[in-house]
This record gives sequence, structure tokens and C-alpha cells, in this order.
Amino acid sequence: SGLVHVKNPHLDSMEEDILYHLDLGTKTHNLPAMFGDIKFVCVGGSPNRMRAFAQFIHKELGLTGNGEHLVDICEGTDRYAMYRAGPVLSISHGMGIPSISIMLHELIKLLHHAKCRDVTIIRIGTSGGLGIEAGSVVITDTAVDSSFKPQFEQVVLDDVVVRSTELDKDLAEELLTCSKEIPDFPTLIGHTMCTYDFYEGQGRLDGALCSFSREKKLEYLKRAYDAGVRNIEMESTAFAALCRLCGLKGESPTHCLSLL
Amino acid sequence: SGLVHVKNPHLDSMEEDILYHLDLGTKTHNLPAMFGDIKFVCVGGSPNRMRAFAQFIHKELGLTGNGEHLVDICEGTDRYAMYRAGPVLSISHGMGIPSISIMLHELIKLLHHAKCRDVTIIRIGTSGGLGIEAGSVVITDTAVDSSFKPQFEQVVLDDVVVRSTELDKDLAEELLTCSKEIPDFPTLIGHTMCTYDFYEGQGRLDGALCSFSREKKLEYLKRAYDAGVRNIEMESTAFAALCRLCGLKGESPTHCLSLL
Repeated sequence: SGLVHVKNPHLDSMEEDILYHLDLGTKTHNLPAMFGDIKFVCVGGSPNRMRAFAQFIHKELGLTGNGEHLVDICEGTDRYAMYRAGPVLSISHGMGIPSISIMLHELIKLLHHAKCRDVTIIRIGTSGGLGIEAGSVVITDTAVDSSFKPQFEQVVLDDVVVRSTELDKDLAEELLTCSKEIPDFPTLIGHTMCTYDFYEGQGRLDGALCSFSREKKLEYLKRAYDAGVRNIEMESTAFAALCRLCGLKGESPTHCLSLL
Repeated sequence: SGLVHVKNPHLDSMEEDILYHLDLGTKTHNLPAMFGDIKFVCVGGSPNRMRAFAQFIHKELGLTGNGEHLVDICEGTDRYAMYRAGPVLSISHGMGIPSISIMLHELIKLLHHAKCRDVTIIRIGTSGGLGIEAGSVVITDTAVDSSFKPQFEQVVLDDVVVRSTELDKDLAEELLTCSKEIPDFPTLIGHTMCTYDFYEGQGRLDGALCSFSREKKLEYLKRAYDAGVRNIEMESTAFAALCRLCGLKGESPTHCLSLL
């Protein structure tokens, strides 16, 4: 049917669903009218960047005005920011798995309540590149954890549930094809490693704590490279797992700064 | 000496230290002049709330003006917001362990470079209360993980390092004493559980995914209560572990909405 799947039997019996961190709700807002025609959702860490992205898309789509007037749909909260340009939503998710997870739970319910169909979700942002030209874009085929396993361990109450982190292969190929139309736009498909920590977790030597040597760092990043990892960031496993479970076609092409 | 401890032998040999996510650095800013006299750092999730808190402290301290003029010291980035009122810094950390960890690494280096002494750090914010009056403040004695263990598992490269999550007992008692001076301000000391997820991790029945029954949820939250947990949030274990390791006197008193 192309609809988003929520997998929560309790939702049907709720009189009202409040999407707390988006400052939206089923009683306070007409979600089908506001969002029913959304076909693409682009998400990224920074609120300012997601505003600039919405303005860019606004102009690309040839919509009226220069996009300066776009307002934050979640302006009642500063947890996330959300902008709309035609059928495209642009939403910030902050940094790290817990932050993107809260947003995705509420976004998925929003798309469900709004009865959206055939939605594609794309995470754009920056990441650290491994053994690739700085400035490259890595399109994620599979997100892996810090042990290079293609899985996301979700704690449900105090049980650990293991979820798959494969992303949409067709969408990855489609994005790769698009990239070839742009000159000097180095793009590749590879694994993306997702960590819970930026400094100690990604082998950085400049955190407040660092217990490893430069050699140990390089050895770890090389092992990651040999396992197929081409970039490292902090949201992809949770993003991939939630997209898969809820039937959202998802991809995570990110722009890479050089780590190795 | 009262100085903050960074535990990273690489830092000494670095020509410049850029605190990327704070938009500050040792070459671009005179950190001792800007921050050398800081004695308190208050941190919380929301940037707007941390601005309002800085304005409140500004007035409480009887500083000139109404605080409306306070500017975001990190205004070059939208990752975090930072305001200053006299010897108090007020900084936002976003949601979840990865987000607060990045901020704390850079804050600890900032306090180190600025040669601050005897700094107290307090995390203020909201949390879900267990078996306590809604509106209570829980002062954390120890942060625990989703299995109620007083520990934080930090992934360093691909090793798991287990860190202690006890907070400063004297500071907890001092805050409790302060609370008694205010009428109708229910405050207690207890364990705080820290999760990686807001919906499935904290037993919420209204996420996009929910695989457990109301009974299973209540059984889990009761087990948490029996283990001494009085509130649940998403940052305390990482906060406690980093404060302890770096010699920062830290506490996490949070205002509780009712979960059980």
C-alpha cells in the first residue's frame, strides 16, 4: 500500500497522540492536511543546515519566493527544527543515536497519522571518511556497529533486541547514478560505521580522554577499512533499523571529511 | 590543585586545540581571559532553556541589566549554545549520551586550557519520575544503566571500558539542604537510570514501535524502583563517568514528570 508501518498495537486505542518533541499532535493539528502529500523527508544533524537545505530545495523546485519565508513547523520546541518545501520535509535530528531515534519515532507516527504514501527518507550530513578522497560522498549500503557487525542492538526495557541495518539498495544505486551527472562529485557506495562516541569511539587523539596511541588508532581504522567501512558517523545504525522496520525506503549519503 | 584533569598525553604536543562543536579554539580565542574565573557550569538539554537559565542567574546575582543582552558564546555553531552570567556558564547538550559526551569532552578541555579551578558542574533538566510526586526534584547519588548497574560502558575503539557513575555525595547533600529552604519543593536523593532510548528503552507505550504490554512495562519500572531508581533520563551515566574521571565535582538534580 506504500503506507508507513507503525508497529505498536497500543496506538489505535489512544484518544490523542502527542508528538512531544515535534510540538505536534493529532488533536491540535490536522496532520493529513499538513503532511499528507509529503514524498521525501531529508534529515540531518544541524537545524540551521536543514533550514538552508529546505530553502535550497524550495528554489530547485521553482516554488514562489526565495525560500527566506520558510518557517520552522516545530517552532514551539527547540528540540528539533522542521521545514517544508513542496513535497519535501527537512528535519534536524541533533547528534547521536538517542537523539535521532526520538525524532524518527515521532516522524514515523506523523507520516502514519498523515496517511502519507511511498515516502523516501534520506539522511544527509557529514561524516569522517576512511581511505577516500576528502569531500567524497559515501552512500551507505549497510550501517555497521563499532565491531563492524551489520546490526543495531536496541535495548527494549532491559532486553537487547538485534535489528538489521541494511539500507535500500535500489535507492543507493539511484543516488549513485544521480551523482554521476554532476562533474567532480566523487561518490561511492560502502559500509558506514556508527559509533556512540565522537572522541574515544572514533579513534580521535584530541578528546579530553585518550588512552590509545596513534598506532592503535590507525590499526583500528585500517581494520574498519578492511571490513568495508568507508565512513564513520553517529546515527546510521538506528536510522537504518527504524526505516527497515517501518517500511520506509531510506538512504544515508553523507559528505566526508578525512579521518584516515 | 583544583584544576580539571584532562587524561590525554597527546594534547600537550598539539599546536592548536580546536573545540569544533563549541566553535572555540586555543589560537582563535583567549580561553583563560574568557573563562578563567568560571566556578559553576550548568548544563541541560534545550538551548532556549539554558539561555533562560543564564538570564535567571544573571538577575539572581544582581548583575547589571536584565540579562536580555546575553549572547550565545558558541553562536558560530548551532550544535550547542553557551551563555555566561558572572562565574556561571550555562550550556545546552542536546539529547542523549552521544550528544552530551561531545559537549563534555570539549568543555573539559576548555576548563583545562582556561586554567579554571574548583569548578562545580550541575546538570539540570527534566526526567521521568518513578513512584514519586510529579514535580519532584531527584538529586542523583548514582547513575545506573538499563540493568540498574552503577556503571557506564564506554566503547574505546572496539574495546568496552566500564566506568564508575557515582556522583559527588557532599554536593548532593548540599543541594538537598538548599531545597529545604524553599517551601513546597519536594526533593529527594536517589538513583537515576539512564537509557539510550526514550520510547522502547523507557517503557513508553506510544512510540512508533512497541512490542511489550502495559503489564510488562509496569513490571520493569517496578523492578527499577525496587533497585533504588527514582527517575529516568538519557545522559546521567556518561555525565557522571566523565565528571569523575576528570576531577569535576558534579551533580544531576532533575525535575521529574511522572512515569509511574
